[in-house]
Amino acid sequence: MTRTHSLLAALVVASLSCLAQADEGMWQPAQLPEIATQLRDRGLRMAPEDLARLTEYPLGAVVGFGFCTASFVSPEGLVVTNHHCAYGAIQYNSTAERNLLTEGFLAATRADELPAEPNMRIYVTESIEDVTARVNAGLRRGMDGAARFQAIDRASKAIVAECEATPGYRCDVYVFHQGLSFQLVRQLEIRDVRLVHAPKEAIGKFGGDVDNWMWPRHTGDYAFFRAYVGPDGQPAAFAAENVPYRPRHHLRVQPAGVGAGEFVMVTGYPGTTNRYRLGEEVGDAIDWRYPAMTSLFQRYVEIVEAHPDEAARLKYAGSIASWNNALKNYGGQVEGLARAGALALKADTESALAEWLDGQGRAGREQARAIATLRGHLAVARASRDRNLLVGQLANLGLFRGARDLYRLALEREKPDLEREFGYQARDEVRIEGNLRQIERRVDPAIEQQLVTELLVRHAALPRGQRLAELDAWLDGAASRQAIAARVAALYRDTALTDTGERLKWFAADRAAIEASDDPYLRLAVAFMPGWLRMEAERKEFDGRGFELRPQYMQAMIDYNRAQGRAIYPDANNSLRVSFGQVIGYSPRDGVRYEPFTRLEGLAAKHTGEDPFDATQGQLALIAERRHGPYRDAALDSVPVNFLADLDITGGNSGSPTLNGRGELVGLAFDGNIESVSADWVFEEPITRSIHVDVRYMLWVMDYLDGAGHLIREMGLAPAGD
Amino acid sequence: MTRTHSLLAALVVASLSCLAQADEGMWQPAQLPEIATQLRDRGLRMAPEDLARLTEYPLGAVVGFGFCTASFVSPEGLVVTNHHCAYGAIQYNSTAERNLLTEGFLAATRADELPAEPNMRIYVTESIEDVTARVNAGLRRGMDGAARFQAIDRASKAIVAECEATPGYRCDVYVFHQGLSFQLVRQLEIRDVRLVHAPKEAIGKFGGDVDNWMWPRHTGDYAFFRAYVGPDGQPAAFAAENVPYRPRHHLRVQPAGVGAGEFVMVTGYPGTTNRYRLGEEVGDAIDWRYPAMTSLFQRYVEIVEAHPDEAARLKYAGSIASWNNALKNYGGQVEGLARAGALALKADTESALAEWLDGQGRAGREQARAIATLRGHLAVARASRDRNLLVGQLANLGLFRGARDLYRLALEREKPDLEREFGYQARDEVRIEGNLRQIERRVDPAIEQQLVTELLVRHAALPRGQRLAELDAWLDGAASRQAIAARVAALYRDTALTDTGERLKWFAADRAAIEASDDPYLRLAVAFMPGWLRMEAERKEFDGRGFELRPQYMQAMIDYNRAQGRAIYPDANNSLRVSFGQVIGYSPRDGVRYEPFTRLEGLAAKHTGEDPFDATQGQLALIAERRHGPYRDAALDSVPVNFLADLDITGGNSGSPTLNGRGELVGLAFDGNIESVSADWVFEEPITRSIHVDVRYMLWVMDYLDGAGHLIREMGLAPAGD
Repeated sequence: MTRTHSLLAALVVASLSCLAQADEGMWQPAQLPEIATQLRDRGLRMAPEDLARLTEYPLGAVVGFGFCTASFVSPEGLVVTNHHCAYGAIQYNSTAERNLLTEGFLAATRADELPAEPNMRIYVTESIEDVTARVNAGLRRGMDGAARFQAIDRASKAIVAECEATPGYRCDVYVFHQGLSFQLVRQLEIRDVRLVHAPKEAIGKFGGDVDNWMWPRHTGDYAFFRAYVGPDGQPAAFAAENVPYRPRHHLRVQPAGVGAGEFVMVTGYPGTTNRYRLGEEVGDAIDWRYPAMTSLFQRYVEIVEAHPDEAARLKYAGSIASWNNALKNYGGQVEGLARAGALALKADTESALAEWLDGQGRAGREQARAIATLRGHLAVARASRDRNLLVGQLANLGLFRGARDLYRLALEREKPDLEREFGYQARDEVRIEGNLRQIERRVDPAIEQQLVTELLVRHAALPRGQRLAELDAWLDGAASRQAIAARVAALYRDTALTDTGERLKWFAADRAAIEASDDPYLRLAVAFMPGWLRMEAERKEFDGRGFELRPQYMQAMIDYNRAQGRAIYPDANNSLRVSFGQVIGYSPRDGVRYEPFTRLEGLAAKHTGEDPFDATQGQLALIAERRHGPYRDAALDSVPVNFLADLDITGGNSGSPTLNGRGELVGLAFDGNIESVSADWVFEEPITRSIHVDVRYMLWVMDYLDGAGHLIREMGLAPAGD
Repeated sequence: MTRTHSLLAALVVASLSCLAQADEGMWQPAQLPEIATQLRDRGLRMAPEDLARLTEYPLGAVVGFGFCTASFVSPEGLVVTNHHCAYGAIQYNSTAERNLLTEGFLAATRADELPAEPNMRIYVTESIEDVTARVNAGLRRGMDGAARFQAIDRASKAIVAECEATPGYRCDVYVFHQGLSFQLVRQLEIRDVRLVHAPKEAIGKFGGDVDNWMWPRHTGDYAFFRAYVGPDGQPAAFAAENVPYRPRHHLRVQPAGVGAGEFVMVTGYPGTTNRYRLGEEVGDAIDWRYPAMTSLFQRYVEIVEAHPDEAARLKYAGSIASWNNALKNYGGQVEGLARAGALALKADTESALAEWLDGQGRAGREQARAIATLRGHLAVARASRDRNLLVGQLANLGLFRGARDLYRLALEREKPDLEREFGYQARDEVRIEGNLRQIERRVDPAIEQQLVTELLVRHAALPRGQRLAELDAWLDGAASRQAIAARVAALYRDTALTDTGERLKWFAADRAAIEASDDPYLRLAVAFMPGWLRMEAERKEFDGRGFELRPQYMQAMIDYNRAQGRAIYPDANNSLRVSFGQVIGYSPRDGVRYEPFTRLEGLAAKHTGEDPFDATQGQLALIAERRHGPYRDAALDSVPVNFLADLDITGGNSGSPTLNGRGELVGLAFDGNIESVSADWVFEEPITRSIHVDVRYMLWVMDYLDGAGHLIREMGLAPAGD
């Protein structure tokens, strides 16, 4: 996933309700003057108008970083983000002899800085322009969904292509408010990114998966990179002669940190929320999507864990982690949505909206009609949801995906670039080739065939009318689990695509060559494609129709709220946002209160010597000595490690700078509490919390443990431990 | 176990350190005037001198109740205690058709009140008299341990016998300060005790074993009994013509409850603490006793759980619960002692004491010498500790214990009563007979033989010099697990003692008859007895020597603390005590704070519909309706369910009234937090907490759910829900 946004994905993202209360809200920078009073009351100590400016302090220092956010903290292009956002780069630079994950890394000089993995990018947002009129220019009344989708898709691609004509820039059209507005985001794309410093995993990932989404937390989730550009100051691929990028702005680091009850804000690139979905959509998630995904992922985990070959299982370590992560998330979602009474909340909001529309004359009646139509439209999609889920999973399994991509790319290459399907344009080819290569590290044929079998068995159990005829045909009558498994075993036995060289050989092949191949996996891909394209067309028709109906619904929501004097922020869509709130704990359950800060002593108390609670002896000794230096918080009588805030973030905000009321860096956002996972749908003010690394802990480790005094100095501060 | 105290048991109880700080301390009533300033500063609103009077308000209303404490709450002998203290009585009155545990019980009229099980007693303490001089009258300088033990034992028994000459009284000599002082406690023994009211288990045991020792807690752990006496006002066995006992005092119930930060005190009968043990003793517990017991109990649980026959396993349901409870306790002990740095604390206290003694001239030198001797004395006992533990366990297993008791009783019956071994006197025979009967409900021969085998296998693995020769001889060369198991299987196959009638037949048998029996279990008991008596003699020698040395050590501790202006409370020994403190939460770990109160909403949130979290629909509906009546706490905006206090209690305090500064009932103590289990050794002021039922929750349930308005009126209050 990148921040680049497909229209399809945008819809999965988009959505009902949740008006801006206290600290809910991921605001577009341009909206900030609109909520100026609220910001000032909460403790912002700068002009909201200044905070809104993309190229001024502090937003000018905040950058996109892979799936994450980062920020410049020195005039020499030093960038800070989360350790978990740096994980790939650290792993990429590790060798059998020198495991940087466990040892940590510190570049003593610029020359020692290590190039991050080749796809690592830093994106500096330079402009955001409303392009709604251009995107919608081709729309006509009465267009069907497919035509509407295509018109929007084509227009967006043309805008992006035009914008990207300037070298060194990445452009994307982002969908806001479910299609009510489209905005072109233009970002400088820095391609030479180097690893400068990462603490040991025992600090940066302390608590690991056990503590993931948990409080109390004691994770030093930070790492440093440096952005480099060519000697001409323009973005360039890694080269020895490149020079540090000099950002227009860098954040001031506030070594005194922040206190309980104080204002904090986070600026970054939150990925996806569903705050404005209709009740039906929330209901579907609760009743169908999360249970269905849970059942599937539990089975995936079982299959992999039951496999006898350890080397094969190891290839799925990442998958297992992500499935387990998803399972924890789905559990939290279902629990959270029940706890929040999400369906009742939606029903209340929707009936209030309906009542208001009732008093708005003809326009109100039209909007009410559009909402009713949207409901019907959603109901229709339910008929094929099981098939779409299972086939979608199947189509994205390692080799299946590889074979499908090879053939699809060959098909798309026959078209002009702008007409090629999203994800199969010229700009995507490098990524596709990379995926084909990575299969060797992530796929074990013996395991994958069991996953394929499981999906085909589940697919075969659907009513005939729901099934994909192409899959039925490929199965050739195989219906029992045993028969299906035999068919799949033959597929994996006979294909040559398990070989990386073979896969890459086909990367350049054209349609005719692939269609002539007798490799059984390519033959499956060719046979499968008409069904897949039919599903895609159905989805575009559905989404295109959504582009007609959803904006009317969102417009009604916005009008209704404006009438009550309330501003509405759009759902997260990977674009730059500002969230604000205060440092504050919460009560996870009756009789228990989570305090807003954790301390060094709590870290030492968690230490077991076993991963993920394996603090180093050096750190434990420093804690025992109470060597706090200037990083001690008087109220806590210790160095704070992590803190909670009630501001509104989600995935994509990882690594975002946490700023005080003057825009100074006091921490890094890196996680939410388990209660916050359902905040994707419903923000629960009393319990939705974000989790941050305290800047004092980061500086304490850098200063006393890791000898990173030169970086502290580069950030304009004086180290104490030298 | 009863509150009656064997000298042997007292020593297991007795012990170094832990000076009276804030809320540590289980004070003898007579000590209260000594700490009057502290009491008043904390919030006591009555004269400490009045609080010290056993037969005045409020102590006159506090009674011993089985292993528990209870209190009179009406002039008509109504008594309140914990539900878990009433468990046996409720179970005793349940039938297959009418399960009072699940249904709860409420006597509509006096006539409906149900006799508790026959051994249930209420003890009203009427006097406490120092008898140290009499107990020690027979002691001579230079006596060996055994003689010293016997002198103390004989004197105590004589004092008890003399005191019990008045019918209706139970007397015991309690050991204080490890033998520095002996006190005769005289208690009225009420034998007709009737069950009046118990809530459903879903309230009274809500949270069950899962929540045992846990916070947050939501348990309605209360039940009501009534004390009856004969028409002449004297204690009598159950009889229809008995009349309610009219206590000298009963507690005033304060329906407004208590608030956070307010003074509370608990009066009751705490069982055992080890606060004054030497560091070596704490070390032995950490390094040896808890791990050894853990290993054993884990194996017991495994053996029972692996047994194929469910009916057999069911007989061990109680044992499994108590082993698991002990395992949880030992785990908490080891963790807590490490957390508290118990060994370092002991070392600090002991070196401070040694330094002080150094300045006290000849007396100080003598005490220091006694302490050094005590250390050596403790070291000697280590040689046989493994054997003592294993043989002790073996000797107390169902049938083994039965056979051993039959033979021992026959031996003891040959002596004058006062010379009979503690536990085998005339006063104990009813209890022994009851135990012989209960074997049928608690022992399954197939399971027990595996437990016996396990212990014999472990015993056989000890070095020869440590083993009990009698057991070796009985095994007759069997050494492997298989051979031992075969020997034990034959024992259980051939004995007739598995039959209750057979066991009871032998209860009346004399020594000669038993020695002539060819029942293999009786033959084993006879063969085993010399070894057992040797162990007992060693223990008496050890304890008798302890009676010489330990009081000198405790005297040194008392003198040392008095010199610093600090009073010292004695270790708990089942005698009446007063503890005080305030309602206050704590931090169980960094970043987390436990609040002092739980609320109805938290109970509803825990409800799963599955035992032990199966609240009734009626209760859930009342909670949802927020029907709080006069029991609502404004600050909590709900009815408080349970609360935490920092006062010092332990097992035996269950059911104790929790009183406010004016001595009014505001709750019932029923548990401690998991962090408090190690408070048996070291009271950790910041985290040792007692858990109480809030009187408002009790009244709310009685009033709105259980229709117990007549009991509320009997307590002098007005029900609101009628």
